[in-house]
Amino acid sequence: MTDNPTADAIPLTVLGTGAMGTALVRAWLAAGHPVTVWNRTHARAEALAAEGATLARTAAEAVSANRLVIVCLLDDASVGAALADVDLTGRDLVDLTTGTPADGRARAAWATAGGARFLDGGIMAVPPMIGDADSGGYVLYSGSSALFEEHRDTLAVPAGTRYVGEDAGFAALHDVALLSAMTGMFAGVSHAFALIRREDVAPRDFAPLLAGWLTSMAPSVHLAADQLEGGDYGKGVVSNLAMQVAGNATLLRTAEEQGVSAELLTPYMGLMERWLAEGHGEEDGTGVVELLEVGRGRADA
Amino acid sequence: MTDNPTADAIPLTVLGTGAMGTALVRAWLAAGHPVTVWNRTHARAEALAAEGATLARTAAEAVSANRLVIVCLLDDASVGAALADVDLTGRDLVDLTTGTPADGRARAAWATAGGARFLDGGIMAVPPMIGDADSGGYVLYSGSSALFEEHRDTLAVPAGTRYVGEDAGFAALHDVALLSAMTGMFAGVSHAFALIRREDVAPRDFAPLLAGWLTSMAPSVHLAADQLEGGDYGKGVVSNLAMQVAGNATLLRTAEEQGVSAELLTPYMGLMERWLAEGHGEEDGTGVVELLEVGRGRADA
Repeated sequence: MTDNPTADAIPLTVLGTGAMGTALVRAWLAAGHPVTVWNRTHARAEALAAEGATLARTAAEAVSANRLVIVCLLDDASVGAALADVDLTGRDLVDLTTGTPADGRARAAWATAGGARFLDGGIMAVPPMIGDADSGGYVLYSGSSALFEEHRDTLAVPAGTRYVGEDAGFAALHDVALLSAMTGMFAGVSHAFALIRREDVAPRDFAPLLAGWLTSMAPSVHLAADQLEGGDYGKGVVSNLAMQVAGNATLLRTAEEQGVSAELLTPYMGLMERWLAEGHGEEDGTGVVELLEVGRGRADA
Repeated sequence: MTDNPTADAIPLTVLGTGAMGTALVRAWLAAGHPVTVWNRTHARAEALAAEGATLARTAAEAVSANRLVIVCLLDDASVGAALADVDLTGRDLVDLTTGTPADGRARAAWATAGGARFLDGGIMAVPPMIGDADSGGYVLYSGSSALFEEHRDTLAVPAGTRYVGEDAGFAALHDVALLSAMTGMFAGVSHAFALIRREDVAPRDFAPLLAGWLTSMAPSVHLAADQLEGGDYGKGVVSNLAMQVAGNATLLRTAEEQGVSAELLTPYMGLMERWLAEGHGEEDGTGVVELLEVGRGRADA
């Protein structure tokens, strides 16, 4: 599969050949990079050998083969287990394993103590998007900027890159924040589909309106960011919190009429009401972010 | 303000001159339509007289002035009160007042019994978007298709139009479904901003990633619609429910690390876990829509 080898295509190692690791390996092979692979379950890596990858019998062997080592395992505990007795001296470790910001920071300290440079990554894509430049998928990176700068062309082969800072926890922080926002969006989408599903409305006819509406509302996060950054939730308000809370009543009555549980909407509506009760009716709803802080007392309690 | 009167610009009446009603009146005046206005609080309509509108002293007088009557009041009860003793014979009533699907259906039956044609509307815009063809705002309409077809050019003056069916409840149903989905998205966005706000990450730097990510994920509703329409939640699955639930653990651990309450995410995650426990791990998560049905027993209980 190394149809297009070039002098710039540096050799690299990939630890972990699950669905995502396999997609990454294929993208680098297709771009002419010699790739050494290792997987705990050896059989899962063997298909990649037929496609041009070199199989290592142990993680240590794989790490010793190349300076640039990409790690894409199940979780951070798997990373610790796989690399427990491996010499990392002089390696450039790029950890694409899903984890928390604290995982990323602890792993960076551990790798640095072991003599490696470290970059944590958060993959904002599913495997079919890897290697497809038009898919919109990308990887968030944080940690060693020197490592990132040196390898950015290689890292850009499977997906776009976004470097978000020296703090090794920032890739996971951004990754999880984006996924959390998406989780909320999908919760809202589930409620929306539940509302129409007992009616003579085809989901396929509703979907374009839904996609269009969410797309047109997404840029409102820029205003929220301005308000958060300036600490002024009254800046640029179009529909104030008091109006929004009044509107929620229609959403709840409709859910009741349609026989749909409002459980996915009520926690946020409850925060909106609480922030309103704290005297923020003329502001935007952005201030509810403050109420999510664990341990924050109720000012109105 | 009737700088551009044309023979096609038919006269119309607007009941209600709050922020939205005022924006509508101005858009029609700017397009050359003679507009008669009425508001319960007369003073709020007076500014519009200076801009070329004709003030009616009563709702009955306003309704008798023109065949096409736009209603934009606080809520459906206000509509009932304003039009209680008004002769609607031969009128074309377009009700843009916010309400539920049941409100729309009941109001349609009431208006039809009174001799009027009826169209219900749901405004997917805020006042500043009215009259701005590039704003992306639009109005959902349902009810009399004859009324809609006859007046569609006039209705298109303040905002785009989307006719969604003869059922007078459908405009509100679509309206509320879209707003509910948006509510979920904003809940997720609030959680995301809460995660980063104690870190050295500028909200303004994070916002473009957030807007881009939500925009790129919004089209996934088309796949969900296909799955719902075909009743096959396993169709086209990329990341199955079991993987999604496993990923939720990282989101929750991150919230805990960052001192952020996960209350806006846990209800949806709970449904995902419940659907997984019911044996749908290999499917997409779309099936959780079924769990939102009020009164649905827990198959695993």
